[in-house]
Amino acid sequence: MRVRKRKGAEEYLENNPHYVILEPEKVKGHWRELFANTNPIHIEVGSGKGRFITGMAQAHPEINYIAIDMQVSVLSHALDKVLESQLPNVRLLLVDGSSLTNYFEAGEIDLVYLNFSDPWPKKKHEKRRLTYKTFLETYQQILPPEGEIHFKTDNRGLFEYSLASFSQYGMILKRVWLDLHASDFEDNVMTEYEEKFSAKGQVIYRVEAKF
Amino acid sequence: MRVRKRKGAEEYLENNPHYVILEPEKVKGHWRELFANTNPIHIEVGSGKGRFITGMAQAHPEINYIAIDMQVSVLSHALDKVLESQLPNVRLLLVDGSSLTNYFEAGEIDLVYLNFSDPWPKKKHEKRRLTYKTFLETYQQILPPEGEIHFKTDNRGLFEYSLASFSQYGMILKRVWLDLHASDFEDNVMTEYEEKFSAKGQVIYRVEAKF
Ligand SMILES: C[S@@+](CC[C@H](N)C(=O)[O-])C[C@H]1O[C@@H](n2cnc3c(N)ncnc32)[C@H](O)[C@@H]1O
Ligand SMILES: C[S@@+](CC[C@H](N)C(=O)[O-])C[C@H]1O[C@@H](n2cnc3c(N)ncnc32)[C@H](O)[C@@H]1O
Repeated sequence: MRVRKRKGAEEYLENNPHYVILEPEKVKGHWRELFANTNPIHIEVGSGKGRFITGMAQAHPEINYIAIDMQVSVLSHALDKVLESQLPNVRLLLVDGSSLTNYFEAGEIDLVYLNFSDPWPKKKHEKRRLTYKTFLETYQQILPPEGEIHFKTDNRGLFEYSLASFSQYGMILKRVWLDLHASDFEDNVMTEYEEKFSAKGQVIYRVEAKF
Repeated sequence: MRVRKRKGAEEYLENNPHYVILEPEKVKGHWRELFANTNPIHIEVGSGKGRFITGMAQAHPEINYIAIDMQVSVLSHALDKVLESQLPNVRLLLVDGSSLTNYFEAGEIDLVYLNFSDPWPKKKHEKRRLTYKTFLETYQQILPPEGEIHFKTDNRGLFEYSLASFSQYGMILKRVWLDLHASDFEDNVMTEYEEKFSAKGQVIYRVEAKF
């Protein structure tokens, strides 16, 4: 996601420590205390400007959400939305998806969302794809046994790759959608990218896979 | 596949016992003798009018092919093609795909092709889909360990279902194509249905899955 650098974005994040968790390694194993309840915790890795996570948090007050992105400017836009809606069940995390085991205890996360992840189409960049096996290993470590990944994208190559990657890692595909918007899937919450690409006529793919 | 009844089709098949194997239960365990070589044997279940299997047999003389369909009229059209081309490495079988273990020994078949299988979209007909778990069990019994199914279709619902069905059966998806004709897949041999539906602008899905 190419985003214009936002002036003062770093300070903006730092000045909102209630929503932006600044020292997440200290919260490892204590996320339920931080949310002050025992509700499930769902994360989105590569959350972008936060439309999905705030929409989900609004629709599901009984679930806690953590939006994770490694770009300061991107996350600052998500913070705009969170501040505006004042949702009690969302937090933001400025970290790399490859390092999640530093911030979450085994089984501390109940569900991982990946939405419109960067496709990295070149074979030599395969390791950067958020559905590459090393990332799957990371997600598996912070999820319970049979934990799930819910992934959607408009990118055909990435989706083809990811189905095979999940399967070859030993995950089971629970359900696959090859045209989400033409399906009976209810309660879909659109992401920024989903809005943009479906408006251009792209089909949206979706899969629910479990470890 | 709705096919007009062809007069005399039954006699036509019976009069060509070199190509149409009339008592296949007697060949069980002896298919390599029948082909008079030790080449791999690939089958297509629901082969229709035989364009795929004759095209494959032409392209791959080092492989033996068996076209399987349970409709007399349909198979008689496949026989037309086989007689015309006089290919030494094709045979035809008029049987139901659910009964393959009656005709093939464990491990006797090297690869199973499914092309544009009837979609049976209603949930109550799920058991008739050629990718339903009881069919997968049948294929597994006649294939070697890690044997493969190569499946293509234009039908979105059937493909979504089949990916999940393969995966839930414990099969591994080796590779997935969500637009075969736009991909770099070479040596694709078109089927009758593939020709028809791709001409209408439908995308063609494909998967290679292994047990
Ligand atoms: C293409 S955008 C999609 C944003 C949003 N999910 C949507 O659907 O609109 C991908 C986002 O993933 C983030 N990202 C990419 N790799 C990441 C990683 N390893 N860890 C965390 N975030 C990552 C990028 O910074 C970018 O904001
Ligand atoms: C939609 S047609 C596709 C034909 C061909 N594969 C193609 O792609 O053009 C499906 C074929 O599968 C056959 N078929 C359906 N169920 C079958 C079964 N259980 N055993 C054998 N053949 C079956 C039908 O008779 C029909 O000829």
